Amino acid sequence: MTYCVGVLLDTGMVFLSDSRTNAGVDQVNIFRKATVFERAGERVLVLQVAGNLSVAQSVISLLHDAIVAKEGAHLFNCHNMYEAACLVGAAVRAVQERDGEALKNFGVEFNPALILGGQIGSEPPRLFNVYAAGNFIEATRDTTYFQIGESKYGKPIIDRVVRRSTSIGEAVKCLLVSMDSTMRSNLSVGPPLDLIIVRRDELRVARHASIESENAYFRSITSGWSEALRHAFVQLPDHDWLGGR
Amino acid sequence: MTYCVGVLLDTGMVFLSDSRTNAGVDQVNIFRKATVFERAGERVLVLQVAGNLSVAQSVISLLHDAIVAKEGAHLFNCHNMYEAACLVGAAVRAVQERDGEALKNFGVEFNPALILGGQIGSEPPRLFNVYAAGNFIEATRDTTYFQIGESKYGKPIIDRVVRRSTSIGEAVKCLLVSMDSTMRSNLSVGPPLDLIIVRRDELRVARHASIESENAYFRSITSGWSEALRHAFVQLPDHDWLGGR
Repeated sequence: MTYCVGVLLDTGMVFLSDSRTNAGVDQVNIFRKATVFERAGERVLVLQVAGNLSVAQSVISLLHDAIVAKEGAHLFNCHNMYEAACLVGAAVRAVQERDGEALKNFGVEFNPALILGGQIGSEPPRLFNVYAAGNFIEATRDTTYFQIGESKYGKPIIDRVVRRSTSIGEAVKCLLVSMDSTMRSNLSVGPPLDLIIVRRDELRVARHASIESENAYFRSITSGWSEALRHAFVQLPDHDWLGGR
Repeated sequence: MTYCVGVLLDTGMVFLSDSRTNAGVDQVNIFRKATVFERAGERVLVLQVAGNLSVAQSVISLLHDAIVAKEGAHLFNCHNMYEAACLVGAAVRAVQERDGEALKNFGVEFNPALILGGQIGSEPPRLFNVYAAGNFIEATRDTTYFQIGESKYGKPIIDRVVRRSTSIGEAVKCLLVSMDSTMRSNLSVGPPLDLIIVRRDELRVARHASIESENAYFRSITSGWSEALRHAFVQLPDHDWLGGR
């Protein structure tokens, strides 16, 4: 399993992904789920992929190869993020055409889910959620984030905290809390965490950090949040459901 | 969809269930998902059912009919909760035998999930999770609660708060918070909520309350929790990810 989340803010974008991949509980490995395509000063794109690892890696390889081949449209010559999302969707479809039938014969679902965010030139930063069919939706002011993979445990806190106007620091904090809730509930989501921060109009990655479970700040967030939740819970009003019995 | 949760405590049991049933978003109805089988002073059993409504109602009907028929083993003459869980499992299997094939032909999954809790005579209270195959597991001191239906959104808070030693009042509060998180994230889970409290060794329902969304206490919990979460979040330590930029 995987948990990735990408957020579009007024001041930039934040991406957080786990890196645990498992084929059964006895084959657990570390694979990064976020890839950066950057031409500093001109464009920066971040792609997170959840689902079958072979599919995810093939999609990334095809996108890379197209850049290297310098033929036709690719992520380094497309004119805007919409075109980039179309290219990612096309790569997903290419892998589906090649591997889909064979996977199906082995009972393996073709289920990649992708988040693509970035900024190209003078266009504002944009964030997309690309589906297994290669179609995609874009974040709006009302829905400013996307999750892929094991999304439910960590969704409530994002819904309550993150808005387009949220600062980058607050968003990072919120995504770490969301990831912590997910990791506590699903063993197949695990560290190290990949944190990528892009500031608006910088057209490069501002920070790419690998956060291990012993990272001091992450620990302060997880233990602080546990304590804060218990404290918040105790403060909630009581009710006498049993009439004084 | 459905969300039901049952908790076994040192001092009794608490059951909370929603009551929204939907067949598509344009056919939404209210059906209680918890049923009480009580012979006050002798035994009290609470059964929560999630999944296809026709299957759920058939299971309840079969269990009721067996009591009325007064033939063979039924929930009012079985000797302990383990036997009761076997009877519930057998009722699930009976419905599967009758309807399973036909449902499958219409692409409807046979997917009931049940929580059975109660106390019979001098035996301590016990809590079971009965699966669609009719087999079941029992709550232990380590895992003192079961959820069925849309369980993920509301799981983290229960994991953090509820222990066997938790008081009934605290458990009710926690389940209401858990239900609130679930209702915010899944439109197909909705009020009124069915709250059933059983105190240990009373062998009757201590409180059976229907909580509407305008219920004052529930409102104070949901608004209080929103505020407390935001406050707790703000108190978490900050980190300078961008080196002062």
